[in-house]
Amino acid sequence: MALRLRPVDSTFYELFTRSATALVGGAELLAELLARDADRAAVAQRMREAEHACDEITHEIVRRVNSTFVTPFDREDIYALASGLDDVMDYMEEAVDLVSLYEVTSLPEELTALVEVIQRCAVLTAESMPRLQSLKDLDEYWIEVNRLENLGDKSYRRTLATLFSGAYEALEVLKLKDIVDSLEKAIDAFERVANIVEQIHVKES
Amino acid sequence: MALRLRPVDSTFYELFTRSATALVGGAELLAELLARDADRAAVAQRMREAEHACDEITHEIVRRVNSTFVTPFDREDIYALASGLDDVMDYMEEAVDLVSLYEVTSLPEELTALVEVIQRCAVLTAESMPRLQSLKDLDEYWIEVNRLENLGDKSYRRTLATLFSGAYEALEVLKLKDIVDSLEKAIDAFERVANIVEQIHVKES
Amino acid sequence: MALRLRPVDSTFYELFTRSATALVGGAELLAELLARDADRAAVAQRMREAEHACDEITHEIVRRVNSTFVTPFDREDIYALASGLDDVMDYMEEAVDLVSLYEVTSLPEELTALVEVIQRCAVLTAESMPRLQSLKDLDEYWIEVNRLENLGDKSYRRTLATLFSGAYEALEVLKLKDIVDSLEKAIDAFERVANIVEQIHVKES
Repeated sequence: MALRLRPVDSTFYELFTRSATALVGGAELLAELLARDADRAAVAQRMREAEHACDEITHEIVRRVNSTFVTPFDREDIYALASGLDDVMDYMEEAVDLVSLYEVTSLPEELTALVEVIQRCAVLTAESMPRLQSLKDLDEYWIEVNRLENLGDKSYRRTLATLFSGAYEALEVLKLKDIVDSLEKAIDAFERVANIVEQIHVKES
Repeated sequence: MALRLRPVDSTFYELFTRSATALVGGAELLAELLARDADRAAVAQRMREAEHACDEITHEIVRRVNSTFVTPFDREDIYALASGLDDVMDYMEEAVDLVSLYEVTSLPEELTALVEVIQRCAVLTAESMPRLQSLKDLDEYWIEVNRLENLGDKSYRRTLATLFSGAYEALEVLKLKDIVDSLEKAIDAFERVANIVEQIHVKES
Repeated sequence: MALRLRPVDSTFYELFTRSATALVGGAELLAELLARDADRAAVAQRMREAEHACDEITHEIVRRVNSTFVTPFDREDIYALASGLDDVMDYMEEAVDLVSLYEVTSLPEELTALVEVIQRCAVLTAESMPRLQSLKDLDEYWIEVNRLENLGDKSYRRTLATLFSGAYEALEVLKLKDIVDSLEKAIDAFERVANIVEQIHVKES
């Protein structure tokens, strides 16, 4: 094992963990949104707050990178990880926002599978962030997120097939496709986060 | 204040300023396009020329980076800034091009707010480029562009709500959404330029 | 001419060549798909296999970068080139997949021009990969790919104009636009590969 020449300041790991934990909360809001009797306006409001809180953490990370002389890993990797986590939140918030913006009343059942993948990715990501400090036991995390992304991609394509099956009017398809695309982009963003973690592991361990 | 070890060759700053000034011209063409009695074919032709001129400046910057031994800041940052400015022009040109390609006859009034944000971003960006040399008084620029991007995002979402309100046919929505998306991507590209400038400032000052 | 301090291990060049050769195969499958009497299910199956084979090569390159002490050029450039080639395959596969997913029965004739550009780009890319070792005679390759991308962009816009001309129903336009967008993204990805090769050439020669 290589000598770790980086200082043991755990603040960055804590901030990444808080950012990823915010994603777990966001993913739960997505699941609430799908419930038949959801108060969509209330969910949208809480999602906006969650997104705002995540933004604050991201800015705190960036400020700290710029004012810290020695960082636990390369500055560019810290930026990439922070903005990768932030991207996930943005896409989740976008999905919720579009539902109210487009005044969509009924969401296709197929969305449940996508949101379940998002919830699972969020939990795995939040659990893995504290392990960045030891850089141990991270490979199961990124392997599983990659597997989930494949699963999500299959659900995404099945959902598209349903949308275009003729059961929906063109305008409704346009609206729903935007929402489904946001969910799929959230899953892709989780995969990018996992790839960044893998690269940090390769570089630093 | 840190010693500046870079040579004082001002050509790069002049090229960036010319590129950003071309964006001011492009933004004015967008505003002309929205006028009720606009000669759209003529505007599209002038936009193509503006885009071509901007391309030339970008290539000149890239050539100069590749042939210059010591650059005013990191090569990758110069590439990023040059192609960031070029991206803005590409999206503006795309918007104008789609209007004539899709033979759109009436543009929704909501577009005016988006184009005003673009015009304001273009002026701020062009004014800030010469200040890259001293790296002073740049923070107001990127803070204001970030604020404008938020404003633009709100206008963008309001425009989408109008498009999907039922007042437009599906095919018209498809066309107009592509155009609105191009304008929004232009605003996002301005924000990326501002972020690149901020990063250069952090690294070099 | 600068001294080449990198070892003469030709494995990376062979892997890049195999990856680009897989793209030639993928482009041929796209052309088959357009044939009036194409067995689309069979083409889609072979495309999935081609995409899978390309993935394997990409992973082999990444594994080798991570386990090799001295690489023929910068690690990040090897990553970028490998994933750039992989992106092309992903977009080609996406196009084929969408045709069967959306149950599109008739494809507009305009797609032929786009697929021809893709075929030409694939052949040029595959021919240029072995020349990465000597870094000679590469400029014609990237100049020609850039020219083809411009040509492809014109075909793309012509295709969009046809789609929105009123000859197609909104739902059909939505489906076909997704497919056309995938083809256009494949061409853009070829251009990015050519730009990466150009940058490697500038750095290393």
